[in-house]
Amino acid sequence: MYTLYYAPGSANMLVHLTLLECGAPYRLERVDLDAGQQRSAAYLALNPNGVVPTLVIDGVPHGEAAALAMLLVERHADAALAPAMDSPQRADYLQWMLYLANSLQPLFRQWFYPGDYLPAAGEGIKEAARIGIEACWSRINTHLATHGPYLLGDTFSVVDLYALMLMRWSRNMPHQAITWPHIAALATRLKARPSWRRLCEAEGLTEWA
Amino acid sequence: MYTLYYAPGSANMLVHLTLLECGAPYRLERVDLDAGQQRSAAYLALNPNGVVPTLVIDGVPHGEAAALAMLLVERHADAALAPAMDSPQRADYLQWMLYLANSLQPLFRQWFYPGDYLPAAGEGIKEAARIGIEACWSRINTHLATHGPYLLGDTFSVVDLYALMLMRWSRNMPHQAITWPHIAALATRLKARPSWRRLCEAEGLTEWA
Ligand SMILES: N[C@@H](CCC(=O)N[C@@H](CS)C(=O)NCC(=O)O)C(=O)O
Ligand SMILES: N[C@@H](CCC(=O)N[C@@H](CS)C(=O)NCC(=O)O)C(=O)O
Repeated sequence: MYTLYYAPGSANMLVHLTLLECGAPYRLERVDLDAGQQRSAAYLALNPNGVVPTLVIDGVPHGEAAALAMLLVERHADAALAPAMDSPQRADYLQWMLYLANSLQPLFRQWFYPGDYLPAAGEGIKEAARIGIEACWSRINTHLATHGPYLLGDTFSVVDLYALMLMRWSRNMPHQAITWPHIAALATRLKARPSWRRLCEAEGLTEWA
Repeated sequence: MYTLYYAPGSANMLVHLTLLECGAPYRLERVDLDAGQQRSAAYLALNPNGVVPTLVIDGVPHGEAAALAMLLVERHADAALAPAMDSPQRADYLQWMLYLANSLQPLFRQWFYPGDYLPAAGEGIKEAARIGIEACWSRINTHLATHGPYLLGDTFSVVDLYALMLMRWSRNMPHQAITWPHIAALATRLKARPSWRRLCEAEGLTEWA
């Protein structure tokens, strides 16, 4: 049994979708980000970075959305959400997970929290993030055009779940992800999966649902 | 046989150190970043993002430093550079790799390339990156104080190699990583390994060597 600490629509979405696709039993604990609950002593004891998600596994709390998704995929190998270690696609899998974790997700952090580290730098940081995010979508769209329809080609994987979360995060931006046609086609496929509908219900997501 | 495309002291350091620790055979191809070789058509065919490192494995090029390190660790399991899939430390391993990839490394990208996406935002972005990087060192130092001496506790792992690269990147910053005592102790341990001396020789690194 897993316990997922979450806030609706936040970085937990990737972990939540992975749990659903794995068919793993879990319960949810909501963290009220607006009330600052992520900075309470009780929550910092679970997640010293003061962010969601946290996944409690066998009584031990762990953080980092992409790491948690990768771990769940290993623990529930029968769900086949990533190429196995001896697969020739393994390098692609790791490369795309890390591209999203290292290049795209951090730009969203800048977009949503531009004054995180230096309030005065806010507007410039936000605009730089927007340009960077669009450059990433463009690169992903080009990749999907020749190597799609999924990020790893013919096979659906956890990388697509990660991309779907990030796509949703762009929904109120000047150029949302689904402005790019191959990304829009991928979103349509992914939103047709039962995991998406169940996620929206469980987290109470209505926008872009 | 692996081929590593590199620039001295750049993100390839993690992959290079991992190759050395695995005892894997490899050859090096230098990319002249100052001359803009990373944006040449020949290099973009290997790495569409136009960055180092690229690792060519069995004739196929792959990117993303952290992903490549994780892949090498899997391919050379005998080197025991990370907890195995069934180890209780597996979650910690993934969590720390992704923390460095998602939270710390991107701030260095901002610090070194503040005008990447929006030249006008440069100064503010750089200063915000500095504050963010220091917050990460602080968090890592606190973790090492109680859970060290390595990032995964008693056992050296690829996570330490990743941290070592990032520590070196901070060497000319106002507060370099080794200002924090537990990080300094870790750096001393890691720089005593043969892999570090061989890396410095092979990449021609003299500063902070
Ligand atoms: N590296 C973390 C980042 C998580 C993150 O930034 N979460 C945001 C929501 S999407 C959060 O908790 N924000 C609240 C805050 O920073 O105060 C991960 O991938 O899990
Ligand atoms: N996400 C990439 C980022 C690599 C990266 O930013 N490399 C830098 C050197 S440390 C680079 O190639 N810079 C040249 C440029 O961007 O033009 C990775 O982790 O491999």
